[in-house]
Amino acid sequence: MSRYQRHVFVCINERPAGHPKGCCLEKGSAAIRDALKAELQKRGLGGIVRANNSGCLDACAFGPSMVIYPEGIWYGGVKKEDVPEIVEQTIIRGAVIPRLLIKDSRYVPGALQYGHLKMSEAK
Amino acid sequence: MSRYQRHVFVCINERPAGHPKGCCLEKGSAAIRDALKAELQKRGLGGIVRANNSGCLDACAFGPSMVIYPEGIWYGGVKKEDVPEIVEQTIIRGAVIPRLLIKDSRYVPGALQYGHLKMSEAK
Repeated sequence: MSRYQRHVFVCINERPAGHPKGCCLEKGSAAIRDALKAELQKRGLGGIVRANNSGCLDACAFGPSMVIYPEGIWYGGVKKEDVPEIVEQTIIRGAVIPRLLIKDSRYVPGALQYGHLKMSEAK
Repeated sequence: MSRYQRHVFVCINERPAGHPKGCCLEKGSAAIRDALKAELQKRGLGGIVRANNSGCLDACAFGPSMVIYPEGIWYGGVKKEDVPEIVEQTIIRGAVIPRLLIKDSRYVPGALQYGHLKMSEAK
């Protein structure tokens, strides 16, 4: 077993005010991270699941963004109120919440890639 | 396919000078992240692999630390000079570099956990 059964990275990147890309922090990601840490703690999951601060995940337009490994599930437009459902459904049960998936074909969860990279997908 | 074929999180957490845990940033993790980004760019892998800043990965004692998903491979004591090998062996080929693995049984890579959490491992 890897160190954590699930490892959640919440983007808390901050850009200067007025930056055209916006940033997850100004969209409330710090409160989401706090709520996630609190919910995991409350359920006694701190030892097997980690909620991590992350730098820019390059999903700024869809923020606040997070990615959950090992599955590579990308959620966007997350609200603090979504956190208990994310913990219950995705983190504990391993189920995707379709409404929170980033609506961009590059982020649709699919078969994970192990072994050699598929270099043909490099740009 | 998830957004990235491999997603590397490099801890750049900083603690106050003299903190007993130390921190990855004072051990040179920013230079490691820079070298990793440059190496990925040089090989044209920017679109399929991401090198990400990360907050504290809770592996401070083993730093500079990084974790590579989806496999959940944890490396510690990483030096800037290790970066080309990490890209070549682990990121491109998917092979573990034993010497860089964090030498603590909690971090040994093993079978990944999908589906419902194994709650019995919670503390």
